[in-house]
Amino acid sequence: MIIGVIGGRVCSIEEAELAENVGRELARRGATVVCGGLSGIMEAVCKGALSAGGMTIGILPGDDRNAANPYVRIPIVTGIGLARNMVVVKSAEALIAIHGWYGTLSEIAYALHYGTPVIGLNTWCLSRNGESDNSIILAFDAKDAVDKAFYAVEKGAGRVDNYGHDTVNNR
Amino acid sequence: MIIGVIGGRVCSIEEAELAENVGRELARRGATVVCGGLSGIMEAVCKGALSAGGMTIGILPGDDRNAANPYVRIPIVTGIGLARNMVVVKSAEALIAIHGWYGTLSEIAYALHYGTPVIGLNTWCLSRNGESDNSIILAFDAKDAVDKAFYAVEKGAGRVDNYGHDTVNNR
Amino acid sequence: MIIGVIGGRVCSIEEAELAENVGRELARRGATVVCGGLSGIMEAVCKGALSAGGMTIGILPGDDRNAANPYVRIPIVTGIGLARNMVVVKSAEALIAIHGWYGTLSEIAYALHYGTPVIGLNTWCLSRNGESDNSIILAFDAKDAVDKAFYAVEKGAGRVDNYGHDTVNNR
Amino acid sequence: MIIGVIGGRVCSIEEAELAENVGRELARRGATVVCGGLSGIMEAVCKGALSAGGMTIGILPGDDRNAANPYVRIPIVTGIGLARNMVVVKSAEALIAIHGWYGTLSEIAYALHYGTPVIGLNTWCLSRNGESDNSIILAFDAKDAVDKAFYAVEKGAGRVDNYGHDTVNNR
Repeated sequence: MIIGVIGGRVCSIEEAELAENVGRELARRGATVVCGGLSGIMEAVCKGALSAGGMTIGILPGDDRNAANPYVRIPIVTGIGLARNMVVVKSAEALIAIHGWYGTLSEIAYALHYGTPVIGLNTWCLSRNGESDNSIILAFDAKDAVDKAFYAVEKGAGRVDNYGHDTVNNR
Repeated sequence: MIIGVIGGRVCSIEEAELAENVGRELARRGATVVCGGLSGIMEAVCKGALSAGGMTIGILPGDDRNAANPYVRIPIVTGIGLARNMVVVKSAEALIAIHGWYGTLSEIAYALHYGTPVIGLNTWCLSRNGESDNSIILAFDAKDAVDKAFYAVEKGAGRVDNYGHDTVNNR
Repeated sequence: MIIGVIGGRVCSIEEAELAENVGRELARRGATVVCGGLSGIMEAVCKGALSAGGMTIGILPGDDRNAANPYVRIPIVTGIGLARNMVVVKSAEALIAIHGWYGTLSEIAYALHYGTPVIGLNTWCLSRNGESDNSIILAFDAKDAVDKAFYAVEKGAGRVDNYGHDTVNNR
Repeated sequence: MIIGVIGGRVCSIEEAELAENVGRELARRGATVVCGGLSGIMEAVCKGALSAGGMTIGILPGDDRNAANPYVRIPIVTGIGLARNMVVVKSAEALIAIHGWYGTLSEIAYALHYGTPVIGLNTWCLSRNGESDNSIILAFDAKDAVDKAFYAVEKGAGRVDNYGHDTVNNR
């Protein structure tokens, strides 16, 4: 199972600890981590996964494999800038979003469009035209997030219609 | 001036009228319209722009130029799927978002990341971790949206730091 | 009709004159020019097209619309690096290649893969495993190249099978 | 070390055996294989690498992870069509090209542009404007190709100037 973990290049110490715990828990349960390969949340989740013997993939926006954080075992060098955000999303069977800025929001949006489950830890909340959108599955801590990601993948990846409605969990 | 107009492939009659008015107003004021080139909001804005003698560019996700709506004067055939959303954003000096689904949300996210002004008409509202994000500039009707887009471009395109904060309008 | 013109960012004076003549001839015959938007052949073809009242589109690899040469009327800002070479190819109904380096070769390769006609002026020659590949249609001067591009588009865009053989002109 | 292996989706039995031997040899020497993830040469090289306990990455053009051949251990799902060819090239420290059609040619072109070493086994030959281009390093069999790929990476990845000339091996 390949689980994406998304979040900012810059994060607080608490957020980094949360990401490291998510990475460790994913690796313990046999999942491969895919992320954007850079610093902040991406580095913390890879560090956690490696510490538990896991596999980590970093899908880099730029041209330089050395931009990968030191815990990325397999750097994918895309050279397509932030269009790589779509590649992170498509390569994951579910996503765990930890805090994050607008780049993370673009990944959440792609995932919801494709019907890929998104588990949120202190991340974006969405509403449109006054109506709340509850597509992001809220989690309370690292273990809860990983539980919910596994659950979402196991009960079947979502399917998406052309209008951006997906069909998992009545989202 | 090149202004992007984003929104869903499927929309209500009222939203289509709004988009058509936005297109007409943009063309009247000499702006070129760039959009995703397909149906719904994209078709309506191109129709409006053409009716006022404007230029319309459709940046298509797929491989087929014939997928462009009939009001696209210049189809750009990308073949990169929804990664083309980033290209729509980067090609525009400001964006007007009309309603829209998750694809539109990904475009809003890219724009806010890059510091490109986003004017919203009945579209997404954002908050993160309980804190409201007011980066989207709200507009009340087509003319107001175009006014605000021109104003935002003329006073200088935003600049963005690495953390996703841009520096226009204290966003 | 949208015709792509491809070639290097750096070129000789003779090649630039050839490109300018190609641009002028395309514009005179009502074709829109699409190119990579930068200097060298790309600048010369846009200059020629503008001088004859034509429309020019520059599909830029980077993030900066100001990187476009001054004769590009519509800059498309992709931010996807040289993956934009595929977008230039897909957006054109036929390609005219003038000299060029490896970037141009990647565009020729994409075009032959998709079955888009390629007209060559002093450009790459291909052979594989000792067998010559005559897919590039040779032209002798600017007018001949434009004639052959129009002819190729008018008799029908090629179709390509999965093995890279296309079906136009017994290529 | 990450070595890319490129070639067609369709190939002869002899070419598949060659690719399988290349994959086996790469894995024996500890290199990770990156490829386009589909059938033909891509499948054969992954099969060979797996049989020797190696790691295989398939960078897929489409949206479906199930399109990966059964010997891909890590599927990267790009959704960007053949623009993924650039990602295969950028993710590899050297490339081994086995036969191949126009898609393979686009990868060779990208690699030569970026100064990534390309080792050729019965693949494309290039000349431009009557002058032969010897940038592709010829190999005689699977072992020779892997030797030359390791040698090229170890003596330092090439650097490329803006004109497409790289600076390895006087290419």
